[in-house]
Amino acid sequence: MTPDAPAPRRRGRPPRTAEATGPGARTRILEAARTEFAEHGYDRTSMRGIARAAGVDAALVHHYFGTKDEVFAAAIEVSFEPALVIPAVLGGAADGLGERLARYFIAVWENPATRAPLLAILRSALTHETAAELLRGFVLRRLLERIAAELDVPDPTFRAELAASHLVGIAILRYVIRAEPLASADPERIIEMVAPTLQRYLTAP
Amino acid sequence: MTPDAPAPRRRGRPPRTAEATGPGARTRILEAARTEFAEHGYDRTSMRGIARAAGVDAALVHHYFGTKDEVFAAAIEVSFEPALVIPAVLGGAADGLGERLARYFIAVWENPATRAPLLAILRSALTHETAAELLRGFVLRRLLERIAAELDVPDPTFRAELAASHLVGIAILRYVIRAEPLASADPERIIEMVAPTLQRYLTAP
Repeated sequence: MTPDAPAPRRRGRPPRTAEATGPGARTRILEAARTEFAEHGYDRTSMRGIARAAGVDAALVHHYFGTKDEVFAAAIEVSFEPALVIPAVLGGAADGLGERLARYFIAVWENPATRAPLLAILRSALTHETAAELLRGFVLRRLLERIAAELDVPDPTFRAELAASHLVGIAILRYVIRAEPLASADPERIIEMVAPTLQRYLTAP
Repeated sequence: MTPDAPAPRRRGRPPRTAEATGPGARTRILEAARTEFAEHGYDRTSMRGIARAAGVDAALVHHYFGTKDEVFAAAIEVSFEPALVIPAVLGGAADGLGERLARYFIAVWENPATRAPLLAILRSALTHETAAELLRGFVLRRLLERIAAELDVPDPTFRAELAASHLVGIAILRYVIRAEPLASADPERIIEMVAPTLQRYLTAP
């Protein structure tokens, strides 16, 4: 992930400079795609809108990614990179696993830069079957299997998904719907309450 | 935007029969509204689309409900009625609370008739701020406070919302995104795993 500075917007068709077509363009397109999907959801995001936000020609977006589905898949893959380094979370002492996972998850969602793409994925997957399918098959399964591989419990993938479901629900109530009192709760209090739940799912026999 | 769903359609303005204006019309409009919001989300649901699906004149929808926000609020209120009888779940022995709640929640979501409106609310709230606000202020707070009033723990509303967050997350992964293995898991297994979590949130000191 290369967090770029917010791309300057141009009116009309951008000039075919090195900036608009060079190697940075692909990264800028992905950044723009994440923002567009986050703000507008899957349905209302267009290739043209992404191109405009990235300051490139729409043809370049098609050149790099082909279809909207493919931009979406690439954007969610990049967005999940922090999640896919999760073995670092899994790698410590077993009895601290629940807390480390809760803390890691809350940190990712408290940070607007990492929250935005996850929000984009969630919103899109909830309202568009293609996006749900991409999330389901492509990312979620890989992520859950990676976690499951580290667990020493019966049905580790089911256990990992139960833990994930709690975290997804917290993200939705706290960051998306912003329902009180969870929305304003101290992150440490959430971690304290949720850690034992995750710990049980991931390590209890 | 008026998406064309395959619904029993009439061409042109429906006839002003008793069926189209009588006392059953309000109920039919709410039913239609729930279906429309569920299928198309808040943004892409129109008063006209609701009227068409209910087989009534659009003016009648305006007459009963005024604005789209008001139809939505009425539709979610009706949809949450099963949730608002939750004191029955809360009313038994304290040590079975987690299991009763998990069982009740899964039953509501396993039944397509009660799932559809909840799905409508969730989808709409995740993609449209007005819908999120209605859910947050109108339903969720009332529901959480009603549960909290029955609990004998510190911060009962926070505890109730943590329990709710887990259930919302399960609903999303199992019924919306349909991510395996949770999507195909035996309901009894989910209840068995989740009940102790809810029990702890709702009753542990």
